[in-house]
Amino acid sequence: MTGPSPQSIHDYARVAQQRLHADIWVYLADGDSAANRNALADVHVIPRPLQNVKGGNTRLTMFGQELEHPILLAPIAYQRLFQTDGECASAMAASAQGTQIIVSSLASQPFNEITKAADQPGCGKPWFQLYWQGDRKKTLSLLHRALDAGLSTIMFTVDAPVKVASLQLPQHIQAVNLESSDAPVSSTSMVFDGWMAQAPTWDDLDWLRAQTNLPLLVKGLLHPDDASRAAESGCDGIVVSNHGGRVLKNAIPSLLALEQIATRIAGRIPVLFDSGIRSGQDVYAALAFGANAVLLGRPYIWGLAAEGALGVARVIRLLRDELEMTMALTGCARLTDINRECVVRILSSVHQNDQIV
Amino acid sequence: MTGPSPQSIHDYARVAQQRLHADIWVYLADGDSAANRNALADVHVIPRPLQNVKGGNTRLTMFGQELEHPILLAPIAYQRLFQTDGECASAMAASAQGTQIIVSSLASQPFNEITKAADQPGCGKPWFQLYWQGDRKKTLSLLHRALDAGLSTIMFTVDAPVKVASLQLPQHIQAVNLESSDAPVSSTSMVFDGWMAQAPTWDDLDWLRAQTNLPLLVKGLLHPDDASRAAESGCDGIVVSNHGGRVLKNAIPSLLALEQIATRIAGRIPVLFDSGIRSGQDVYAALAFGANAVLLGRPYIWGLAAEGALGVARVIRLLRDELEMTMALTGCARLTDINRECVVRILSSVHQNDQIV
Amino acid sequence: MTGPSPQSIHDYARVAQQRLHADIWVYLADGDSAANRNALADVHVIPRPLQNVKGGNTRLTMFGQELEHPILLAPIAYQRLFQTDGECASAMAASAQGTQIIVSSLASQPFNEITKAADQPGCGKPWFQLYWQGDRKKTLSLLHRALDAGLSTIMFTVDAPVKVASLQLPQHIQAVNLESSDAPVSSTSMVFDGWMAQAPTWDDLDWLRAQTNLPLLVKGLLHPDDASRAAESGCDGIVVSNHGGRVLKNAIPSLLALEQIATRIAGRIPVLFDSGIRSGQDVYAALAFGANAVLLGRPYIWGLAAEGALGVARVIRLLRDELEMTMALTGCARLTDINRECVVRILSSVHQNDQIV
Amino acid sequence: MTGPSPQSIHDYARVAQQRLHADIWVYLADGDSAANRNALADVHVIPRPLQNVKGGNTRLTMFGQELEHPILLAPIAYQRLFQTDGECASAMAASAQGTQIIVSSLASQPFNEITKAADQPGCGKPWFQLYWQGDRKKTLSLLHRALDAGLSTIMFTVDAPVKVASLQLPQHIQAVNLESSDAPVSSTSMVFDGWMAQAPTWDDLDWLRAQTNLPLLVKGLLHPDDASRAAESGCDGIVVSNHGGRVLKNAIPSLLALEQIATRIAGRIPVLFDSGIRSGQDVYAALAFGANAVLLGRPYIWGLAAEGALGVARVIRLLRDELEMTMALTGCARLTDINRECVVRILSSVHQNDQIV
Repeated sequence: MTGPSPQSIHDYARVAQQRLHADIWVYLADGDSAANRNALADVHVIPRPLQNVKGGNTRLTMFGQELEHPILLAPIAYQRLFQTDGECASAMAASAQGTQIIVSSLASQPFNEITKAADQPGCGKPWFQLYWQGDRKKTLSLLHRALDAGLSTIMFTVDAPVKVASLQLPQHIQAVNLESSDAPVSSTSMVFDGWMAQAPTWDDLDWLRAQTNLPLLVKGLLHPDDASRAAESGCDGIVVSNHGGRVLKNAIPSLLALEQIATRIAGRIPVLFDSGIRSGQDVYAALAFGANAVLLGRPYIWGLAAEGALGVARVIRLLRDELEMTMALTGCARLTDINRECVVRILSSVHQNDQIV
Repeated sequence: MTGPSPQSIHDYARVAQQRLHADIWVYLADGDSAANRNALADVHVIPRPLQNVKGGNTRLTMFGQELEHPILLAPIAYQRLFQTDGECASAMAASAQGTQIIVSSLASQPFNEITKAADQPGCGKPWFQLYWQGDRKKTLSLLHRALDAGLSTIMFTVDAPVKVASLQLPQHIQAVNLESSDAPVSSTSMVFDGWMAQAPTWDDLDWLRAQTNLPLLVKGLLHPDDASRAAESGCDGIVVSNHGGRVLKNAIPSLLALEQIATRIAGRIPVLFDSGIRSGQDVYAALAFGANAVLLGRPYIWGLAAEGALGVARVIRLLRDELEMTMALTGCARLTDINRECVVRILSSVHQNDQIV
Repeated sequence: MTGPSPQSIHDYARVAQQRLHADIWVYLADGDSAANRNALADVHVIPRPLQNVKGGNTRLTMFGQELEHPILLAPIAYQRLFQTDGECASAMAASAQGTQIIVSSLASQPFNEITKAADQPGCGKPWFQLYWQGDRKKTLSLLHRALDAGLSTIMFTVDAPVKVASLQLPQHIQAVNLESSDAPVSSTSMVFDGWMAQAPTWDDLDWLRAQTNLPLLVKGLLHPDDASRAAESGCDGIVVSNHGGRVLKNAIPSLLALEQIATRIAGRIPVLFDSGIRSGQDVYAALAFGANAVLLGRPYIWGLAAEGALGVARVIRLLRDELEMTMALTGCARLTDINRECVVRILSSVHQNDQIV
Repeated sequence: MTGPSPQSIHDYARVAQQRLHADIWVYLADGDSAANRNALADVHVIPRPLQNVKGGNTRLTMFGQELEHPILLAPIAYQRLFQTDGECASAMAASAQGTQIIVSSLASQPFNEITKAADQPGCGKPWFQLYWQGDRKKTLSLLHRALDAGLSTIMFTVDAPVKVASLQLPQHIQAVNLESSDAPVSSTSMVFDGWMAQAPTWDDLDWLRAQTNLPLLVKGLLHPDDASRAAESGCDGIVVSNHGGRVLKNAIPSLLALEQIATRIAGRIPVLFDSGIRSGQDVYAALAFGANAVLLGRPYIWGLAAEGALGVARVIRLLRDELEMTMALTGCARLTDINRECVVRILSSVHQNDQIV
């Protein structure tokens, strides 16, 4: 690339679109939910000048790991679709930026190579995103392979049982960490008798909880009752997510679910937020509504496609800088200073008379 | 057609527009109400993963008929305008997909040919949509012709007394089941002394109820008082509908009327919903707001125009698949699991301080 | 014109735009308020089929005159700008359609010619719109000229003291009924010391009331306190109007003012509505919000420009037909059956926490 | 310029864009907040005709100065970027129009030349906008230079500690009133340890208050608690501002903050309003929500770029005329007649359930 380096998230998106094959760009953009992004854009902050925020920072500790900031890299499948170095580049950038990647069950590179790329002094192990593999035995087998390869902190994704990749993968890109028999069953039957017969249930979650002492998070909850039940099942954290809008196009925007869930969880376990994050202001908004940290999705893939590991690192840094600036100007020296009173919602759409519970 | 088969409702709309004469496309699209569709699009679902929905299904029983799913084909006039096989193709597709068509009084093919096309093992008889014929005698005569031809379950449409076809019908397409004297009176006088003098009243409904023991539904009610009165008049069901926006462009969106009507009816008789359904998500939304089933309108005509009976069948299947996926992901194994708590309205327009009654 | 005759209001607008010089079209369109029209478009009706509305009609009596329907022609200046026959054509069309025109103080044709054009069997006299002429003597002189020429029912416009025509009038078009000294003073000074020094006050209204026993309406009120005061001053009617948005671009939409004013007036005197009427549905909406009749503005000028008197008559008829259809389908046989319960507002913008008083 | 002189604010914007280098236009437009402008556009006035407003005016007294109207010129940096005569032209126009400019710390012309340009009979001294210079000594030194050069009334801007000019300044344009050591520190470190370590705190404000008996205003407050604290610190006025949206793109719109702040301050000290003013109607809206006066920003720079001092004067006059007309038509003869009851908010976005405090 001979032009100037991208300066903003939007620059990265533009460059990524130029570099990627149209099919792959469409696959990446698929389902991107305007409702998710609008809900975040409705959140406005109230500047608080003249506060003393010298020495402020964005650090936090999660599941025993020290993170420089609350922006993790969401599990995204088949990253070699976007750049030759794939998940390794993303993992390296996450480490360099003081955070973690959650490695997808559908990673296109071996788990041990990814953990090796992420291995930097003072950094904990990357996290592992677990998809249910149709039954307990296969699921446990996959989990053990991931843990053996050095991944830790398990994020169990429960919201996408009916989604199979709409893209025909190139031959050289595969889910290399799955047994061949682990490949998604091509079901020609119906939703209920096909996909859902392979989907995990609350019983399966209880079983999974019993298999490991490692931190276990559940990703894809949007109802406070479900969040509560996950906490009672002994899960160590939950991720409020609608899968970035990819699964159900009319799912409730994640931010609207977050507030009620955070209120219900009331600090018992960490609540993470996923879906629609595009800026440090969005990170701030999610934290104000009760999240402890967020997962960044498509934007880091834009960085990956545009500039490899360097692009991922720069995208993370851009969001962190925006988060710091927003904190500084609203008088927040610590993440824990960010709360609901720091923001107002100026609604372009109204969500009223609709308590979920 | 040499291109690939349409994959989505929107593909069918596009192909239909290409195939139809511009006048006919305009006639079909006339009055399509953005307000109807926006009200449905405002409805968002709350995913409920980890529920056990294995063996779920979309079956229901209505008026003694077993239906595979709650998507019926709305009565649409003159279907030979859209495809040579006309109503027969639609009826055949409905049967094949485990549902029923409501045959219009203004069908362009003989009733007995339509019932024959719909005659598949295990399928009940197609329903009949009855327009008032200006007086009781003519109306009864038309009804008897329809019943004699094998139609059953009468849907009496009461909301379009002032609508005459804006299209000049081609000579070979006619309302073949009407007596020539049944043709709409060409009134040059006013609304009140012309059209409305031919319109049915509540007295006429009471009379009609007394003429038959067959199931009788009233289609076109939007006020809870009217729904209540229909139930008290002994009707077996009502259809909340604003005629897809064709009659009064500023009629209340059907979905907003549905909730109050369903609350008022409180399960005494089935409530069907019509106007604006474009996806399985929309079907789910209508059921969440209290409908027992829905009528699909323009989309199946797109399928008819694009691919005949096959296109109609595929459009129905597309919506059913979307409905199943939405149910599965929201933890609903049965239609009766879908209720108001499954959804939130995120309003792009606000409907407040306006209780209808 | 060799093409087909316009079929809708929008056709008339299009033809008018083609026929008029661009400057004149801009002058006519100036200030057309989207807020006015949006407020009307937010009003949705609730159809009530099966009501017996045979023999319904739109007749009313106002100030001793029998009108066929509640659509009057608003006072619009200099109508010869739009068509050679000017006010005479409009007046003739109003008579033919069973209604009245309110002749502007700035009419471009002599009052007596206009009254003559309007003189049809069974028709009352056209109304007269009075602009304040800077002082009482000149104002009274103008009023007497108008009454002497056969006009009656005085509509005193009070909302446009600062508006002078932005258009350079062609030499042959003038306010022929004003004395030359009546021409608007070209003030180079400020608003307060120029225009407002010439504006009428409540005292002037009291004085005017004392000059005549003819029906006297005040046009341009938007605050319920002002409406109340006008009623207490002995006025016979008021016109809720923001001058179609021409005077203050951020004036409250007339419809939002109407409801509170009608509630306050509570039937003591007729309340007319002006600003933004574009369809019979809009007329219905205004009546539902408490108006007794409406003034139609720009649309009849479109008819005038397109087809002269015939065009004006056809525009009136189009709106009346739409009004009748809306009434018939909502179960209203008389204008007095139209009330607030017949409609719901589905707000695209929200007007809350803002009681005017 | 050979074309006609600009007639409206929008004309000035257009001409300015033509005349300015693209980089400079972008720098000027940067961050212009639609949310600020939309909040103002939502405010609608209720016309009150027939009021006697003869002899009305827009005069006010602030901090001992007589102003012809409440429209001051906001502090804008480096005005020679836009026109050779820079701040001197703006100051001259302000004087000629009976108002004041607030001279920026980053003015591109010497303070004494600016005060000289503003020196007209009967006019008070221009105001001075003070940026914190990293420590108390440097800040006091800058303040004394400004006061020595004849500026008075100090407006201390506290909301932009992290903003450095994004534009590479041409060599001949500098902040000529700063000591070379006063130039912003080029920090390569983070927000908290770089910019914020240089930012003033409430303690610094208390110190500054003790250094001078001149009127001292704080600019950039948006939270009622902060406004209250500034009043209690002995400040003479506050300016509600989000820096025109330049600092934080998702800051609360200034108008929404204004209402709560004005209520809290309750007249103890003047409250000025800044951000988004584009018309006299906007000035009226700000006053109705509790402001005593407003700062005009970008629009006067458009005038400066288009026509120099004349352009600035004409822009001010345009807004004043619009303000007068709005006052006259709403029955307000004095600025103090404008209050919250004069307006309604018709929200295109809803700001509910969100009391800041």
